[in-house]
Amino acid sequence: MGESLQAFSQHHKTLLEEKMASFVERLESPAVLKEAMQYSLSAGGKRIRPLLLFATLAAYGQETIKGLNSACALEMVHTYSLIHDDLPSMDDDDLRRGKPTNHKVYGEANAILAGDALLTFSFQLIAETDEAFASPEAKLALIKEFAQSAGAEGMVGGQVADMLGEKKTLTLPELEYIHVHKTGKLLSFGVMAGAILAGASDKEKQLLLEFSTHLGLAFQIRDDILDLEGSEELIGKPVGSDEVNAKSTYPSILTMNGAKAALDEHTQLAKEKLAKTGLNTYYLEKITDMLAERNH
Amino acid sequence: MGESLQAFSQHHKTLLEEKMASFVERLESPAVLKEAMQYSLSAGGKRIRPLLLFATLAAYGQETIKGLNSACALEMVHTYSLIHDDLPSMDDDDLRRGKPTNHKVYGEANAILAGDALLTFSFQLIAETDEAFASPEAKLALIKEFAQSAGAEGMVGGQVADMLGEKKTLTLPELEYIHVHKTGKLLSFGVMAGAILAGASDKEKQLLLEFSTHLGLAFQIRDDILDLEGSEELIGKPVGSDEVNAKSTYPSILTMNGAKAALDEHTQLAKEKLAKTGLNTYYLEKITDMLAERNH
Repeated sequence: MGESLQAFSQHHKTLLEEKMASFVERLESPAVLKEAMQYSLSAGGKRIRPLLLFATLAAYGQETIKGLNSACALEMVHTYSLIHDDLPSMDDDDLRRGKPTNHKVYGEANAILAGDALLTFSFQLIAETDEAFASPEAKLALIKEFAQSAGAEGMVGGQVADMLGEKKTLTLPELEYIHVHKTGKLLSFGVMAGAILAGASDKEKQLLLEFSTHLGLAFQIRDDILDLEGSEELIGKPVGSDEVNAKSTYPSILTMNGAKAALDEHTQLAKEKLAKTGLNTYYLEKITDMLAERNH
Repeated sequence: MGESLQAFSQHHKTLLEEKMASFVERLESPAVLKEAMQYSLSAGGKRIRPLLLFATLAAYGQETIKGLNSACALEMVHTYSLIHDDLPSMDDDDLRRGKPTNHKVYGEANAILAGDALLTFSFQLIAETDEAFASPEAKLALIKEFAQSAGAEGMVGGQVADMLGEKKTLTLPELEYIHVHKTGKLLSFGVMAGAILAGASDKEKQLLLEFSTHLGLAFQIRDDILDLEGSEELIGKPVGSDEVNAKSTYPSILTMNGAKAALDEHTQLAKEKLAKTGLNTYYLEKITDMLAERNH
């Protein structure tokens, strides 16, 4: 791997953002719908899910361009979930990454429909992956895995569980159920999509799934810690907002020291699983470190 | 064709409803999410889109069971669109088919998420069609066609155009754009999915697409006529509600006599296209008559 993670990440971020914009641009749809879709797609963010997909392909020494359609699909589904989560009947957020949320700009109805359109389009993009990059069987495997990760058994189920758990004191298993589903499944899909496209063996897929599950939990624990110890300017929301909302978090259940120990443990376990694959996992390891140490 | 349309329709309606319920039942998801999904799926309706799919397979003399997963997917997407359309920020409807709308029972957030989950699940069901019923290539063709019919270039685009056109006097081409997209594309998918599964030739697909486009327009014109001349009890909403809402309709643009003439014309054209296929289109013709003559 000749590149630093930063160069690898920047290169693929640009590629992804240009491709998503051009996919939406080509749609024959009312202008306001396309604008609403582009508005949230271009709002920035770490693009961590696509990055995991590209890094997994890189671990197999494969051309990362193979995963571009799936990476766009994945980021579109993440984006639709943020648009719907921000709605007044859900989290009722006016700002996301310092910009007005989608429904604040385009109205609730258009925001709901822009989310619906992004979700629908994502499946089309996977199905339309160039034949040179994925066999029909691989595309169908991606679509099944993607639907399970994003739907009632994945992200949407996690979101419902999260709402049910609000203002209630949760046990650690309840909290983990929420995070594994609400954020973990879609993070895992990034890794699993790379594995499917690279033709990973069942054993490798199992190890990569375990890696990504630990990574997802570490990601969420870090989020909870940042909510209490982070800089408001960097994390983009008031410090301590989970406490104000009486939300159960890793620090509230495990204490801050316990949460930090859990973060270290999941980070360590994630790296151990990676090492067992025997692949060239340089970027995946660096991503794991970056997520554990990030300050926003 | 030994059966009457009524028997064919009833048989497949039961099959569809049982299969949809069992698909949702098997999901490992929070109970309230599954309940919200089942609530709207089991609310009845004509199941006209799946019926078109089954009738198209029957026109090819093929086993209709081949289309069961796609038919469930199609009805789930239709159902999600109704759940989202009924939301306060969209049509703000409290009742659908005489029952409280999804968000009235489960709350807005759960209604949005139940819709999202149905949409996501629908793609999984097509991808999981039994290998004996569809090749990987056929499944991918179905998924692409389905996403285009349901998304920004189809139903969702039509819904946005419909909102933009509200309380504005539309031209006939503007009105047709809305209906071709908002309701036509998903009706056409029923026919096109049957054609894909049956291995139709390109020429047959073209004729069936033209058939279904005329059918979709006839369906919508009949809807507009019923809004003015129908029985409130049968159509489930107050007669004249489009007029009260100042919505452009076929009768408002063409006069009532003009709308009735347009209904006859599209019905006639639909049947001519069917006849040109040379297939055994008994059920498709009967459905065309039924939709043109329906009183609800």
